[in-house]
Amino acid sequence: MAKNVGIVAIDIYFPPTCVQQEALEAHDGASKGKYTIGLGQDCMAFCTEVEDVISMSLTVVSSLLEKYGIDPKQIGRLEVGSETVIDKSKSIKTFLMQLFETCGNSDIEGVDSSNACYGGTAALFNCVNWVESNSWDGRYGLVVCTDSAVYAEGPARPTGGAAAIALLIGPDAPIAFESKLRGSHMAHAYDFYKPNLASEYPVVDGKLSQTCYLMAVDACYKHFCQKYEKFEKQQFSVADADYFVFHSPYNKLVQKSFARLLFNDFLKDASSIDETSKEKLAPFANLTGDESYQSRDLEKASQQVAKPFYDAKVQPTTLIPKQVGNMYTASLYAAFISLVHNKHSSLAGQRAVLFSYGSGLTATMFSLKFNEGKSPFSLSNIATVMSVDKKLKSRHEFAPEKFVETMHLMEKRYGAKDFVTSKDCSLLAPGTYYLTEVDTMYRRFYAKKDKDGAIENGMVANGH
Amino acid sequence: MAKNVGIVAIDIYFPPTCVQQEALEAHDGASKGKYTIGLGQDCMAFCTEVEDVISMSLTVVSSLLEKYGIDPKQIGRLEVGSETVIDKSKSIKTFLMQLFETCGNSDIEGVDSSNACYGGTAALFNCVNWVESNSWDGRYGLVVCTDSAVYAEGPARPTGGAAAIALLIGPDAPIAFESKLRGSHMAHAYDFYKPNLASEYPVVDGKLSQTCYLMAVDACYKHFCQKYEKFEKQQFSVADADYFVFHSPYNKLVQKSFARLLFNDFLKDASSIDETSKEKLAPFANLTGDESYQSRDLEKASQQVAKPFYDAKVQPTTLIPKQVGNMYTASLYAAFISLVHNKHSSLAGQRAVLFSYGSGLTATMFSLKFNEGKSPFSLSNIATVMSVDKKLKSRHEFAPEKFVETMHLMEKRYGAKDFVTSKDCSLLAPGTYYLTEVDTMYRRFYAKKDKDGAIENGMVANGH
Repeated sequence: MAKNVGIVAIDIYFPPTCVQQEALEAHDGASKGKYTIGLGQDCMAFCTEVEDVISMSLTVVSSLLEKYGIDPKQIGRLEVGSETVIDKSKSIKTFLMQLFETCGNSDIEGVDSSNACYGGTAALFNCVNWVESNSWDGRYGLVVCTDSAVYAEGPARPTGGAAAIALLIGPDAPIAFESKLRGSHMAHAYDFYKPNLASEYPVVDGKLSQTCYLMAVDACYKHFCQKYEKFEKQQFSVADADYFVFHSPYNKLVQKSFARLLFNDFLKDASSIDETSKEKLAPFANLTGDESYQSRDLEKASQQVAKPFYDAKVQPTTLIPKQVGNMYTASLYAAFISLVHNKHSSLAGQRAVLFSYGSGLTATMFSLKFNEGKSPFSLSNIATVMSVDKKLKSRHEFAPEKFVETMHLMEKRYGAKDFVTSKDCSLLAPGTYYLTEVDTMYRRFYAKKDKDGAIENGMVANGH
Repeated sequence: MAKNVGIVAIDIYFPPTCVQQEALEAHDGASKGKYTIGLGQDCMAFCTEVEDVISMSLTVVSSLLEKYGIDPKQIGRLEVGSETVIDKSKSIKTFLMQLFETCGNSDIEGVDSSNACYGGTAALFNCVNWVESNSWDGRYGLVVCTDSAVYAEGPARPTGGAAAIALLIGPDAPIAFESKLRGSHMAHAYDFYKPNLASEYPVVDGKLSQTCYLMAVDACYKHFCQKYEKFEKQQFSVADADYFVFHSPYNKLVQKSFARLLFNDFLKDASSIDETSKEKLAPFANLTGDESYQSRDLEKASQQVAKPFYDAKVQPTTLIPKQVGNMYTASLYAAFISLVHNKHSSLAGQRAVLFSYGSGLTATMFSLKFNEGKSPFSLSNIATVMSVDKKLKSRHEFAPEKFVETMHLMEKRYGAKDFVTSKDCSLLAPGTYYLTEVDTMYRRFYAKKDKDGAIENGMVANGH
């Protein structure tokens, strides 16, 4: 049986087009700091008319295969997590099969997994389980998280974002699953959903969604701690992991969520809570669950208690989510990539606990352990390949007016047929795929900007 | 590690409302036999305004748990395969979590898998892999395939259908996976897809879809045989499996597909082909792949060669697909259930090879082996619980006019909000869930018809 199964390589792509949250605040007439401090967000990426979840996933998969020197024949499973629906039947995975056609590899299992922002985690678990199962054939799994998060004008709009992430899965991984340490919480809720099929925008109950998220944090942490105590024969507290990585709709919710873990530690009298902290949290010891989610005083006190832990164990994970925005299925893994980017030289031997959340709702807390790994699958090479700094620095800032104009165009284009795009790929990096046309039968055509900036190849809409 | 992992229990639900294909032929002004002989279909089930893929899956899951005496706490993973989109973000799985709320089991992994009719197979593989993986916690997996297949008026309309199937997954199964015997073929195609987001109806290229299906049969059979030859050290032919079970959009395609397997056997000079058959197929030995898909003469000759094999190895799988219609993700498993229903007393020790196909396209051929199993998970008890004959016989035939009228209402209801249904559950069997209301926020409310035929409980739309 395969051992130390986990993530052996990673790549990330996000659109080079973005808008500053500070500029958006001013444009929207919001109070100063509402998006930057209130939400804790710096900048937001978005797709223009030449990009979508399919083009982004084509870009990131071809980039990962090329940069790590992976023969496409070595992929035996490919799964996509996404909540951005372009077609209600044909999976994004089938679009990606175009990348494997030239080498004649069609024997690749896996389809798309979906439940809001959780689909990528489901795809990841499925790929890891496959490598550990009897049906594994010795090849790599590949997980793709790809989403474009856009909201109607209003308070949720600054919580958008867009990205695609590819994770290569195999044995002897530098980022290995501690598979027994996992707690899930799944329930029926209407906190965020997309019932208006013709619109790309979700229906969101912001307050309910935040409560659902925090309740899921609590329930998953409880299940996770129970599993840890069962297998490790000792209590778990935030002291037992080096990093905590959260799905990040906006940074403020990550701050609140991590503080909940400390409050949970306090309630079970864990070693992470010193005497001073105990005193600060004592007034809240007898709140009911519901009261605890509503109490602003508890929120302040627990965030104060959490602060030193947050700075050490969470802050290194926040770079990309703050700079790119909510990436739905890619959000948690963008936070994780931020950690690898910031700390790759010191991660070996350390543990990261991840919290994945998808509205509706599905949530899991799980554990990963690092080792240095061997090139090309070493932590340092993964950080080099991902080039996070370079990608962030080479972006193009749009003025809010131009961002809003783009959103208007995208509203018309969503679900539409019979149009050609501008085909303007001047802002895209070489190697980026982009949408050129949707024909009268809704078939989508993409091209790739080559190394010299010209079109490398037009991709046929239909493989036959 | 868990051994002989596979399907330990099964239940099936299909709407009691149906229309006879012969009556539909006459109503549509189609030539006599066009649907019954040309497509090979007998009858078609459909949802009325009180049923949908969510209600059907609630019905089949609660029925399976009750009939096999499974404590809901014993479910550790629940996955849904479906291509019927009611919400683009919130999974059907989260609706099913309502059934586990009263017993307090929220620690259940898994979401929805999607690619046309293949999502159920992806969910099944995921559940089996989970039981074989390090993250398995000793509990059962549960796979749900649920779909309502409806088409716009025209030639594809008689290829509709509706059903939900639940498969309980665990070790020491009476229906165990031969996990190494598996061949997939996945590619980018536009044979059948759902790009018109506001409509429930797909865009279908019937001729292309049939060719894609047959090409996938060939490619999967080739990959499957290679795996068999690698692990069993001998050639595979149709003689090496007792039954072949196909995804069944309509029965005629199943006949054609099975005949392709014989043609493949002929091309590789397999032992299943006797001298008489060789003579019949010899004229087609040098056709190119494309020519072979277009040749009506080859189709006839290979179906003639295949006939005795078809009667023994395929015909027992065709009952429900011919009677209920295309059930998309549930179609393959409805064919498999037909086999268990018809042959349960003689299946022990036998092998069934299954072919799953989803347009777009994704396809896998895989192998299952039977043993008698122990009550309640014995083949004979599974056949008893499923009560296929009783369910088929207690249906209510609608006249074609009433069926068309229902389709018109369903068109208006798809994606709509702010309506109450008739709440008329007089045609539904006791224990069936049904839709009562969709409120102004698109939240869906269901109730359950109790054992005495009254409403057992209204289910709240929001778990909080």
